[in-house]
Amino acid sequence: MTMTIEKTEKIGKMVKRGKMMAEKIVQNENVPNEKDYAALAVNEKALPKKNEDFSEWYNELIERAQLSDKRYPIKGMNIWPAYGWKLMTNIDREIRKECDATGHEEVYFPLLIPETEFKKEEEHIKGFSQEVYWVTHGGKNKLEIPLLLRPTSETAMYPIFSIWVRSHADLPLKIYQIVNTFRYETKQTRAFIRVREIHFFEAHTCHVDFEDAERQIKEDLEIMKKIAKKLCLPYVLARRPDWDKFAGAYYTIGVDTLMPNGKALQLASIHQYKENFSKPYNITYETENGERKYVHQTTYGMSERLVGAIVGVHGDDRGLILPPAVAPIKVVIIPILAKGKQESVENEARLLQKELQEAGLETKLDTRNLRPGSKFYDWEMKGVPLRLELGPRDIKDNVVSYTRRDNDEKGTFPRGELVKKVNEILDKISENLWNRAQSIIDNGITQIDNLGGAKEQTGILKMAWCGKESCGHKIEDATDKKILGVPVGVSLKGKCIVCGEETEIPIYVAGTY
Amino acid sequence: MTMTIEKTEKIGKMVKRGKMMAEKIVQNENVPNEKDYAALAVNEKALPKKNEDFSEWYNELIERAQLSDKRYPIKGMNIWPAYGWKLMTNIDREIRKECDATGHEEVYFPLLIPETEFKKEEEHIKGFSQEVYWVTHGGKNKLEIPLLLRPTSETAMYPIFSIWVRSHADLPLKIYQIVNTFRYETKQTRAFIRVREIHFFEAHTCHVDFEDAERQIKEDLEIMKKIAKKLCLPYVLARRPDWDKFAGAYYTIGVDTLMPNGKALQLASIHQYKENFSKPYNITYETENGERKYVHQTTYGMSERLVGAIVGVHGDDRGLILPPAVAPIKVVIIPILAKGKQESVENEARLLQKELQEAGLETKLDTRNLRPGSKFYDWEMKGVPLRLELGPRDIKDNVVSYTRRDNDEKGTFPRGELVKKVNEILDKISENLWNRAQSIIDNGITQIDNLGGAKEQTGILKMAWCGKESCGHKIEDATDKKILGVPVGVSLKGKCIVCGEETEIPIYVAGTY
Repeated sequence: MTMTIEKTEKIGKMVKRGKMMAEKIVQNENVPNEKDYAALAVNEKALPKKNEDFSEWYNELIERAQLSDKRYPIKGMNIWPAYGWKLMTNIDREIRKECDATGHEEVYFPLLIPETEFKKEEEHIKGFSQEVYWVTHGGKNKLEIPLLLRPTSETAMYPIFSIWVRSHADLPLKIYQIVNTFRYETKQTRAFIRVREIHFFEAHTCHVDFEDAERQIKEDLEIMKKIAKKLCLPYVLARRPDWDKFAGAYYTIGVDTLMPNGKALQLASIHQYKENFSKPYNITYETENGERKYVHQTTYGMSERLVGAIVGVHGDDRGLILPPAVAPIKVVIIPILAKGKQESVENEARLLQKELQEAGLETKLDTRNLRPGSKFYDWEMKGVPLRLELGPRDIKDNVVSYTRRDNDEKGTFPRGELVKKVNEILDKISENLWNRAQSIIDNGITQIDNLGGAKEQTGILKMAWCGKESCGHKIEDATDKKILGVPVGVSLKGKCIVCGEETEIPIYVAGTY
Repeated sequence: MTMTIEKTEKIGKMVKRGKMMAEKIVQNENVPNEKDYAALAVNEKALPKKNEDFSEWYNELIERAQLSDKRYPIKGMNIWPAYGWKLMTNIDREIRKECDATGHEEVYFPLLIPETEFKKEEEHIKGFSQEVYWVTHGGKNKLEIPLLLRPTSETAMYPIFSIWVRSHADLPLKIYQIVNTFRYETKQTRAFIRVREIHFFEAHTCHVDFEDAERQIKEDLEIMKKIAKKLCLPYVLARRPDWDKFAGAYYTIGVDTLMPNGKALQLASIHQYKENFSKPYNITYETENGERKYVHQTTYGMSERLVGAIVGVHGDDRGLILPPAVAPIKVVIIPILAKGKQESVENEARLLQKELQEAGLETKLDTRNLRPGSKFYDWEMKGVPLRLELGPRDIKDNVVSYTRRDNDEKGTFPRGELVKKVNEILDKISENLWNRAQSIIDNGITQIDNLGGAKEQTGILKMAWCGKESCGHKIEDATDKKILGVPVGVSLKGKCIVCGEETEIPIYVAGTY
C-alpha cells in the first residue's frame, strides 16, 4: 500500500493533535503521546472531516463507532452490532416511557399481511404497492393469497380494530408497537436514513370523533417534544402539502430536523386519518344513544432515523457525541496508572464505577492494557458523553478529573460529590447539545422572496405561497428541493413567490433525505 | 340462543362457587354474591375444565385472559394483545438479564436471508427448506436472488462471523438476539406452541476449541436453570437422538417440561455445532502461534413456547396463574367499599399501590364500578398472583387482607409491613408453583421394561435402549411417541426394550407438542 500525500497530511494533523492533547493532560503521569495518535492514524485511516464531506464522514463514522455493519449481503439491510443496538433500544425505552405515561398500550401484530386486506384502502395501496416485498411461497408451495411484509401496519391492524371496537366505552383505543418494517427502496440506501428493513415505532389510535382525534395529535406533539429533548434534537413542525401526505391520511404533520449539511431529515410523522380508514375497514362503535358511527383515527410514526439524526447533528471530526439520556455508556473511567500504583488506582476506579452504576448511570471502566491516549480515541469515537480520569494525584487530592465529550471542557470535582457532579455535568452536556442543534436550525432558516439562486442555497427556505398545488410544484422544481409544508405556529404575510397572489401562508422548503 | 343442558349445569356450578366464595369473605361489607357469578357465567360462557379437555381449556383461556388473539386472517400468525405482550416481554427481560450477566451482547441481524447464503450448509437446508417462507418480489420486480424469512439465524449471521472473527483475541464471541422468526408449518397450529411467526430468542457463540464450546453449553444450562426458576417451570434435560437433532448440529440437548395432560413441551434447545457451520461459512481465527483454525460454535434457542408452558403447567379452571417474576401485574388491590366510606377506602388503597410500585412491584388498583366478585373473576382469569382487599374494617384494624391466586389461601398482615409481606407471599407463591410443577414431572415419569400398553400411557416413559437407530424407531412406532433423548445425569442398567441387548443407556419417551 503506498502512502498518498493526503494520507501523510492527515497523519501530520493527527500527530499535532496528539501533541496538543499530551500537553493538556501533562499533569498525569502517563500521557498519550504522538506515537499513539500516529499509530492510530496509520492503523485506522482518519475519519473524513464532517464539514468537508458530510456524507463520507457519516458513512465512515457509523461503521467505525460500531453503530451499523453494512456488510450484510442485501443492500439496505444492515446489521445492528451491540453498541448500535443498545443506542436504538435505549431510544425505544424512552419512547415506551412516554407512551405508557399517556395511556398507550404496547401490542404486537403479525409481520405478514394478506394481499386481500392490504387492498381495502385505495390511496394507501397506491402509495405503497411499488415498495412492498411479497411472500409468494411457503416451502415449495405457492401460497393461495400472496402475503406482504408490513411497510406499516394499518392494513394488519384495522381489520382487527373492527372487532375490538364495539362501543364508545372501548374508545379511545390507544396502542403502539415497535417492530421491523420493510420497504423495497429503489433509491440509494443510507444506514438508518433510507433502509429496506426499518426499525419502526407506530402508534395507532381510534376516537369517537374528529375533535378527540385532534386532541390525540396534540398529545403526540407533547410526546414528541419530550423525546426530542432527550435526544437533544430540536425540530420544525410542518403540515405536509396534500400531494405529499401519508397515503390515505386526511393530513400529515412532518417533524423535521436540520442536518449540519443543510438537508432536512424527517424524525417523525403524525397523521390525522379522519374516517379514511375506518370506512373501508368498517371500524364503528355504538354511541351512548345507540347510533353506529365510524371512529376517527390517528397514527404517529418514528424510526431508526432518530439514530441517523443523532449521528449527523451532534457528531464531530473525532466521532459520535451521544445525548446522555440514551448513550449506551454515559461515563467512561480511565485509570491513569503510575508505576507501582496500578492496583490501588484500579481499585479506586472500580469504586467510582460501582457508585455511578448504583445511581443508575451506565459506566464503563476501561482497564485494557493500552495507553490512555488510545482509550481516549476509542471512547471519543463512540461518543461517550463524559470521561473521568483517575490517577494517583487525583486520589491524593481526593478529586476526580473529567473531560466533556461535547466541548472538551476539563476540570476536577471533589470525590465525595461524584454522583451529584456527574449528573450535573451530563445535564450541561444535554443542554449544550440541544442549544448547538437549535442554532443549526435557527441559522439554517432563510426567508426568501424570489426563487433566483434558491437551487444553490442550503438549509430551510421560508417563503410565501398561495396554496395552489401548481405553484407548489413550480417551487419544488425551481429550488430542486421539497416543500416540507406549512410550518406550525409560524406566520408570514406576503405574496406567493410564484404567482404573486397575496397570501398569509408560509412554507418551508428544503433539500431532504 | 337456546340454553343447552350442559350450559345450565355449568351455570349451576358457578352459582355454587359464587355462594361459597361469598361465605368465605363474608367479613367484608360488600361481598360478591351468586348474582355476580351467574351473570358472569351467562355473559361469558364458562371456561372448559382443565382436566376434562385440556386442549379446549388452553385455547379458550389464552383468548379469555387476553394473551393471544387468534382472529388475525393468517392461520398460525396471532396477535399479541397488550397483556400477553407484557408477559412475553417480561420473560424477555429475564432472559436479557441472564445473558448480559454472562457477557453475551445483544445484536440484531436482518430478517431476510439470501438463498445463496442459506444453501451453504447442506444438513441445515435439508432440515428447513420445506418450511421457509420465500420473498420473491419487491414491488412488481422479481428479485434476482430469492430471499427467505429467517427460521433461525445461522445462515444470516455466519457469513458475517467470518468477517468479525479474526484472531483468538476475538473469541469467545457471544451474542444473542430476540426477534421474529418464521416457519411455514403444515401441521395444526396452536397459540405459542406451534405458530408460523415465532417470537424467538437465539444465542450464538464461537470458541477456540471444542472444550471451550462445551463450557459454553454448561453456562447455557446454568442460564436455563435461573430462567426456569423464575418461570416456575422445572424440566428434564435430554440429549436428542441423532436423527432428531437440530439440522446441522453435532448434538442437541432438549429442555422439556411436562404439561399436565402428559405431553412433553420443549422449552429450549442447546446445540453443540463443533465445526459443522464454521467450515462451510469459513469462520476461522489465528491462534497465538499464527495457525488458522476453525471456530467451534454453539447456539441456545427459546421461544414464546415459554408462555405456552406457563399457561398449561400453572393455570386452573378459573384461569391463568402467573409466576410472580414475570406477571404483568403482580398485585391487584380491590377496594371493598362501604356506603359513605368509598373515598377514604380508595385513598388508602392508592397509598398501598404507591408504596408497592415504589418497591418495584407492578400493582393494579381496580376502581371500576363493579362488584368485588366481578373484579375477582377478572383478575383470577388473568392470573394475577396476589390479590389485596382493603375495606373499612381492614383500615380500622390497620391490616391488609390478601388472597393467593395459587392456592386461595387468605389472611391478613399488618399494614406497616406491606412491602415485606407482599414480597414474602410472592416468594411463597413462586415456590409453590415450582413444587407443584415439579411433582407433575416426578409423578409423570414411569419406568417400563416392555412396550405393551405404552401407546395408552401418558407422561414420560423411561426405558433402556441399546443406542441403535433401528431400535429407536421401533420404540417410537410402538409407543406412538417421540424419543426425547438420553436424559442428562440419569443412569439405568438394563436390557434394550426392543432387542434385549445389555445397555446402560436410559431414554425418555413421550408424546410431544
